[in-house]
Amino acid sequence: MLTQTSNQLNSFIFSTPEMSQVFSTQAQLRAMARFEWALTCALEKCGLAAGGSGNLLKSLLQAEFIEIESLVSEGKLSGNIAIPFVRQLTAVVKSQNEPAARSIHLGATSQDVLDTALVLQIRDALTLLNRGIDNLTDVVARQVKKHAGTLLAGRTWLQIGPPTTLGLKLAGTLTALRRTGSRLQQSASRLLVLQFGGAVGTRSALGKHGPQVAAELAQLLELRDPEMPWHTERDNLAEVVQVLSLLTGSLAKFARDIVLLMQSEVAEVSEGGNADRGGSSTMPHKHNPVACAAVIAIHFTMPGLAGTMLSAMPQEHERAVGLWQAEWETIPEAFRRTAAALGYALDIAEHLQVDAAKMQANLDATLGLPMAEAVSVALTRTIGKSKSHDLLRLATDRVLRERRPLAEVLGLMPEVTAHLSAAEIDQLLDPRNYLGSVDQFIGQVLEEDNAYS
Amino acid sequence: MLTQTSNQLNSFIFSTPEMSQVFSTQAQLRAMARFEWALTCALEKCGLAAGGSGNLLKSLLQAEFIEIESLVSEGKLSGNIAIPFVRQLTAVVKSQNEPAARSIHLGATSQDVLDTALVLQIRDALTLLNRGIDNLTDVVARQVKKHAGTLLAGRTWLQIGPPTTLGLKLAGTLTALRRTGSRLQQSASRLLVLQFGGAVGTRSALGKHGPQVAAELAQLLELRDPEMPWHTERDNLAEVVQVLSLLTGSLAKFARDIVLLMQSEVAEVSEGGNADRGGSSTMPHKHNPVACAAVIAIHFTMPGLAGTMLSAMPQEHERAVGLWQAEWETIPEAFRRTAAALGYALDIAEHLQVDAAKMQANLDATLGLPMAEAVSVALTRTIGKSKSHDLLRLATDRVLRERRPLAEVLGLMPEVTAHLSAAEIDQLLDPRNYLGSVDQFIGQVLEEDNAYS
Amino acid sequence: MLTQTSNQLNSFIFSTPEMSQVFSTQAQLRAMARFEWALTCALEKCGLAAGGSGNLLKSLLQAEFIEIESLVSEGKLSGNIAIPFVRQLTAVVKSQNEPAARSIHLGATSQDVLDTALVLQIRDALTLLNRGIDNLTDVVARQVKKHAGTLLAGRTWLQIGPPTTLGLKLAGTLTALRRTGSRLQQSASRLLVLQFGGAVGTRSALGKHGPQVAAELAQLLELRDPEMPWHTERDNLAEVVQVLSLLTGSLAKFARDIVLLMQSEVAEVSEGGNADRGGSSTMPHKHNPVACAAVIAIHFTMPGLAGTMLSAMPQEHERAVGLWQAEWETIPEAFRRTAAALGYALDIAEHLQVDAAKMQANLDATLGLPMAEAVSVALTRTIGKSKSHDLLRLATDRVLRERRPLAEVLGLMPEVTAHLSAAEIDQLLDPRNYLGSVDQFIGQVLEEDNAYS
Amino acid sequence: MLTQTSNQLNSFIFSTPEMSQVFSTQAQLRAMARFEWALTCALEKCGLAAGGSGNLLKSLLQAEFIEIESLVSEGKLSGNIAIPFVRQLTAVVKSQNEPAARSIHLGATSQDVLDTALVLQIRDALTLLNRGIDNLTDVVARQVKKHAGTLLAGRTWLQIGPPTTLGLKLAGTLTALRRTGSRLQQSASRLLVLQFGGAVGTRSALGKHGPQVAAELAQLLELRDPEMPWHTERDNLAEVVQVLSLLTGSLAKFARDIVLLMQSEVAEVSEGGNADRGGSSTMPHKHNPVACAAVIAIHFTMPGLAGTMLSAMPQEHERAVGLWQAEWETIPEAFRRTAAALGYALDIAEHLQVDAAKMQANLDATLGLPMAEAVSVALTRTIGKSKSHDLLRLATDRVLRERRPLAEVLGLMPEVTAHLSAAEIDQLLDPRNYLGSVDQFIGQVLEEDNAYS
Repeated sequence: MLTQTSNQLNSFIFSTPEMSQVFSTQAQLRAMARFEWALTCALEKCGLAAGGSGNLLKSLLQAEFIEIESLVSEGKLSGNIAIPFVRQLTAVVKSQNEPAARSIHLGATSQDVLDTALVLQIRDALTLLNRGIDNLTDVVARQVKKHAGTLLAGRTWLQIGPPTTLGLKLAGTLTALRRTGSRLQQSASRLLVLQFGGAVGTRSALGKHGPQVAAELAQLLELRDPEMPWHTERDNLAEVVQVLSLLTGSLAKFARDIVLLMQSEVAEVSEGGNADRGGSSTMPHKHNPVACAAVIAIHFTMPGLAGTMLSAMPQEHERAVGLWQAEWETIPEAFRRTAAALGYALDIAEHLQVDAAKMQANLDATLGLPMAEAVSVALTRTIGKSKSHDLLRLATDRVLRERRPLAEVLGLMPEVTAHLSAAEIDQLLDPRNYLGSVDQFIGQVLEEDNAYS
Repeated sequence: MLTQTSNQLNSFIFSTPEMSQVFSTQAQLRAMARFEWALTCALEKCGLAAGGSGNLLKSLLQAEFIEIESLVSEGKLSGNIAIPFVRQLTAVVKSQNEPAARSIHLGATSQDVLDTALVLQIRDALTLLNRGIDNLTDVVARQVKKHAGTLLAGRTWLQIGPPTTLGLKLAGTLTALRRTGSRLQQSASRLLVLQFGGAVGTRSALGKHGPQVAAELAQLLELRDPEMPWHTERDNLAEVVQVLSLLTGSLAKFARDIVLLMQSEVAEVSEGGNADRGGSSTMPHKHNPVACAAVIAIHFTMPGLAGTMLSAMPQEHERAVGLWQAEWETIPEAFRRTAAALGYALDIAEHLQVDAAKMQANLDATLGLPMAEAVSVALTRTIGKSKSHDLLRLATDRVLRERRPLAEVLGLMPEVTAHLSAAEIDQLLDPRNYLGSVDQFIGQVLEEDNAYS
Repeated sequence: MLTQTSNQLNSFIFSTPEMSQVFSTQAQLRAMARFEWALTCALEKCGLAAGGSGNLLKSLLQAEFIEIESLVSEGKLSGNIAIPFVRQLTAVVKSQNEPAARSIHLGATSQDVLDTALVLQIRDALTLLNRGIDNLTDVVARQVKKHAGTLLAGRTWLQIGPPTTLGLKLAGTLTALRRTGSRLQQSASRLLVLQFGGAVGTRSALGKHGPQVAAELAQLLELRDPEMPWHTERDNLAEVVQVLSLLTGSLAKFARDIVLLMQSEVAEVSEGGNADRGGSSTMPHKHNPVACAAVIAIHFTMPGLAGTMLSAMPQEHERAVGLWQAEWETIPEAFRRTAAALGYALDIAEHLQVDAAKMQANLDATLGLPMAEAVSVALTRTIGKSKSHDLLRLATDRVLRERRPLAEVLGLMPEVTAHLSAAEIDQLLDPRNYLGSVDQFIGQVLEEDNAYS
Repeated sequence: MLTQTSNQLNSFIFSTPEMSQVFSTQAQLRAMARFEWALTCALEKCGLAAGGSGNLLKSLLQAEFIEIESLVSEGKLSGNIAIPFVRQLTAVVKSQNEPAARSIHLGATSQDVLDTALVLQIRDALTLLNRGIDNLTDVVARQVKKHAGTLLAGRTWLQIGPPTTLGLKLAGTLTALRRTGSRLQQSASRLLVLQFGGAVGTRSALGKHGPQVAAELAQLLELRDPEMPWHTERDNLAEVVQVLSLLTGSLAKFARDIVLLMQSEVAEVSEGGNADRGGSSTMPHKHNPVACAAVIAIHFTMPGLAGTMLSAMPQEHERAVGLWQAEWETIPEAFRRTAAALGYALDIAEHLQVDAAKMQANLDATLGLPMAEAVSVALTRTIGKSKSHDLLRLATDRVLRERRPLAEVLGLMPEVTAHLSAAEIDQLLDPRNYLGSVDQFIGQVLEEDNAYS
């Protein structure tokens, strides 16, 4: 019986079908078969494999011949599944064409096929993620534009402060997404390379043919042939998991803000989309932020995955004892979770329900207090900072004591009305007039195209 | 299509079939059905459910009626699978006995059934682990006894020092296993309790019947009814994952020592058992420590799981947004991996091949240098620490320079032979005479029964 | 110049003066001097040290003779500061009494003095923490009692649900504090033991005197003499850091709830104490949760410290290369931060400002929707669950549509009024009548004395 | 009394004096003063500050006027030290020139000065680190060249395999260092930007002057003015800590290999430099890898720091409650430790003692077994893989059984000698002839200049 480490009742939160596909049992077997096919082709081209070997291997790229149960049971004894994989592959090839079987895996070691297959899977995974980031970027950009002027309270320390706009909030997410898009590209340019070193990374079994075989192999797999094998230098793999964690971190910041804005007492936005989403049969007023919860849940598992990759870096000599294996479930897990988080974030961003009236109402409920700064700045120009500050403190204390709007209170203070008319006070206290550089920021963010790439 | 987050090619390292069973989809469904059955029985006893309801639910304990695909797709919308689970359960009960359907899940909330089901699964998991710890403790104790006097070099900073015995090394593992056995018991006594609070933890839907329903429910599930619900106080769950990590940490210390002793240049022990284990077809002299590698790999993933549990503790109010969900795959993963590590450790301990001659040879190869301390201590008694120290430094420098054994060199030094005869020197340099309290330690460790419990 | 790794501008958040004292340079030196004093006394008692040696060492317990700069620079070369410490100690003793100098550190290794000194410091640290937990427990218990009936909204998914009381919320914290109090005691009973093994843990330099010397040494230090040395079995040290993290986790849950309740839009509680606390000169309405922020900040650094302790467990053979040293700043840091978190939590709990009127107002603002469950439960008894559920859904939809209170809407529905009078409806919708087992829970929590110990 | 969170007895391992300087109390105060000076200059240029204000602030750049004790005690109340800092600065300016005091900090919020000051400190820190990486790269490149042909055993699973060279091992470190050098540059290009947003990130207090003030401010600080403030988008800060962890990870891989090669039983290299380094007075044969231990110790604390940065990313709205503060000690700590690790690595690389004879002897001790692959490859060409494999297995079994060299055993096997002469066998078994692409790899690595940048 095969050991399952997944439970469908929970895993639905932590992956997408597409990304699960990329890191499925079958996909890994196909990637391994692809490595062996390309190696055989390269060997054939260099005269180290019988003619036609490559073609025969090509017919086995789907790896359907593999008997998984025996693969796993032998893998448990040998420490990895590459050895039984090559054995099964060799057997099936031999049954069709003995000479072709002789050169299978020649010059390679288990880690070569496992690491390169992983790189091929990661390339597919990055394609999915980049598409996801692009989609999310588009949707968020659209929302930024749409809500560039949608006024809501700025909040620091979870206390209401001067106003900002929903567009600017979302623009922050946009900048983070773009930065991490660049990070992923930079990471990929280091990571998407061949691993091919033979037993200890010297390609010794190939003698003088090493460079040519490697070059052909790399070309067939459309990977770069790096200056030397990297079997126990794992920084590239650790890096990509770090970058995925940065991505989920930015998505979690986005999701957490939505959660806070969805609170019953705030109620400025809600997750849209499916009407059944987040509903409660007994409490119809509730709109549970279920997609946001998934994003946050995912992010809280990512530092652990990223930390495992870092802790596993000091791999011994030419092959590690344990630290390599520690990566095996960690890397796919990181990709699956990131893909799921991106999917949830896209869903949230696309269907976000915005209640601009409630945003305004929440601002109004502050009696103008967060706008005190605006009046203070204006008065400073005529009566100086110190006096202005004292006046405002008197005014705001009275607002709090009497629960009357700041405009009203200021209108009753002769020291204020001596310098500011009622109309001027109203204008100063209008949040719409206190948005500073918001338009400029949003313009810059939306103009930004590929500044980071 | 259901989302899979596991790949059989890697997961075989990270679980055992038995523990995978405990946390399988079916096992979780059965645990949830068990909660609902027990709740219905409790309600029936208190007159809140129709007569016979409990019996009807009893016939559904295998949860085979659940349609998993729709459960998962609805779960994705509602944020957890408890809501569709109750819906499906209610439907099937209703089809058989309408009145019995009325009281299903009465007084409970989604988190009640999910958390209590988890506790039931953890109880099964702890039974497996405790058995594993007991087995391992027995095997290690046997090896401690067997190798109580098997001499090998003590090593500090990975440099050979004075001798110790293999029995004492393994006795260290034994003490750690026992301590963590106690920790698990202490953790279980806190953790194996009912979660049953209703919507916000007040059991309000049950009115005055709350205490009685809870008491019956707890009794049927053989769990303690705690002084209050603990829905967002997650210390007990975080604790058990910490303890599992302590266990894998001690196992990894054990495995790492074996790996180091298995190095080609040391070659004092090797993993035994299956002849094919760790073998290399092209390099038959190699004995790869594959089981040790698995233990180490597992441990390096545990701090991440433990860290997620800690980070997820500050759960908001009466139900968290995301932090609860972050636990869902983390806890089963921690149990699966710990079980696997225990299995590997048992295998290693049981079949450990010990080469006592090589241990002696490695000690001999040091030319007696690590025994210099013994002579130094002896000389100190007659000529003082300072002089003794100077003499030994001269002697050991000469040993290193001339590659002659320390005994020989000391025999040539009149300042030494004035105080120590050749026989005395030989006796002092015999590692067997420099084992201090080893026997006493081993005796104490083996006598120790349940001192920590 | 000595290397400082602390910046006073930030560190004030992350420690208390008392705990900093426990892990200060001077305190560590004193703990090391204490070990050497006790060892010398033990040796003297066993005839292995000159008469009067112990007394001489006693006069040096303050370790004021140590020249720290040279200690550190030599420590850098030798890998730890025990070697130069013993050298300096020996020199100062020798200058006063040559024979007494001969036996200093006899039978011990660097790790013995460093580990045992650490254990002594941890004992002091635990005394501080236990006092802190006791104080906090007292204060929280008082608040639980005081606010046993202070009604506020229960909140799940950060959405308002049925009511609970502030007392019950705080009772959850109380249970967590008590559990972790027990954990600390259990951890201490394992951890507060002597480390004394000599070069490789065999006490070989003491020959047959090992047991007696160790017993005397342990007694003088008031530590247990464990069944064998534990130099590379670090589970006890890792455990205590885990437990500290569980403590900060529970405090962070408490603090996060306060932060959420302090939000401008919720405003049900605030941090009290000093009037200047959390104030903003320009925005006097703001009450920033500065103490809560500190608790949360601290907790978010703890999983990293706990993870380091776990990762550092697989220590090689009889002394590790690097993993031991990884603990050195980690353990004190964990204690300092936990102490600081406890201090902040005490401050918050002691001075918590509660606005019960605002709590009631927030409940009222829900138009009675969270109470729909109560009516549904009542109607179920007469018209069945299905019909009751449908009626309530109609009613609550209308409440949301027309923004009229649920009581009013229900009063207009003949299918409802056929079964429930207006008075009954009012009674059902009164949150005060829907508190289920709150009183019982609080009673049980407050009665609870030492159930877990 | 100020709270210290550092103990000089341990901190010497975890920092360098230079990096401690960059993140010292004084350096942070100076960076904050620098921000306020530049802001005042920018305001003055835009007509928002009195003439001469900038000059006055310039005279205060050393921040020596700050009373640290009151700064810290007020900081504890207000949640950060920016508020009292501005208060003290304003007071001292006011005492000299009242009008200049009016515009201090105008348009800025606490987080602006703290974040931008941090960026300035990080810029200095990166300068130190880049210099360190350059130095280390140079030294390692020199060793790669020197030991390009220094033969030693390749080791996989800590078992001896076919040979490699010390130069190639070190070349791996070189590639990792270069990749992380590029990562640091890419990170810096994102991170070294101004943070200046005012209360909620809108620069509202500056009205239409925002863009100009920000542009001037950025120019004076030689930072880029980003498209919008980034106060709660912390990906850039989290990224740099990830990259530092990748760096220490690669250094720890390097250090761990040295430690393993320094083992008594291997003894192929040792840490050089100071003769007292790693010595043991009682065991002069020991060469403890103290610098390697420090590198490893440091790396094992880095995943925790990196994880804290990731966990702290979901910062609420326009200023976080706790998650921001969680960064405060984490970032400096990461830089200090990385600098220390770099320093140790440089020391190790520079003074590495290489014992090429011992390397050869260790290879010889394998009786030629790791070279079996070479013979197998050669025979495969004539008799096919399967037969060749069988012959080699017979031969190597006999080598192990009889402890005779492989060359001798092969010479006795007619099936072998029929195809290979004694000279050919000797040539095949000469490790020097089985180095595959080592020269090519080293050549490529040394040629590589800035391929990744």
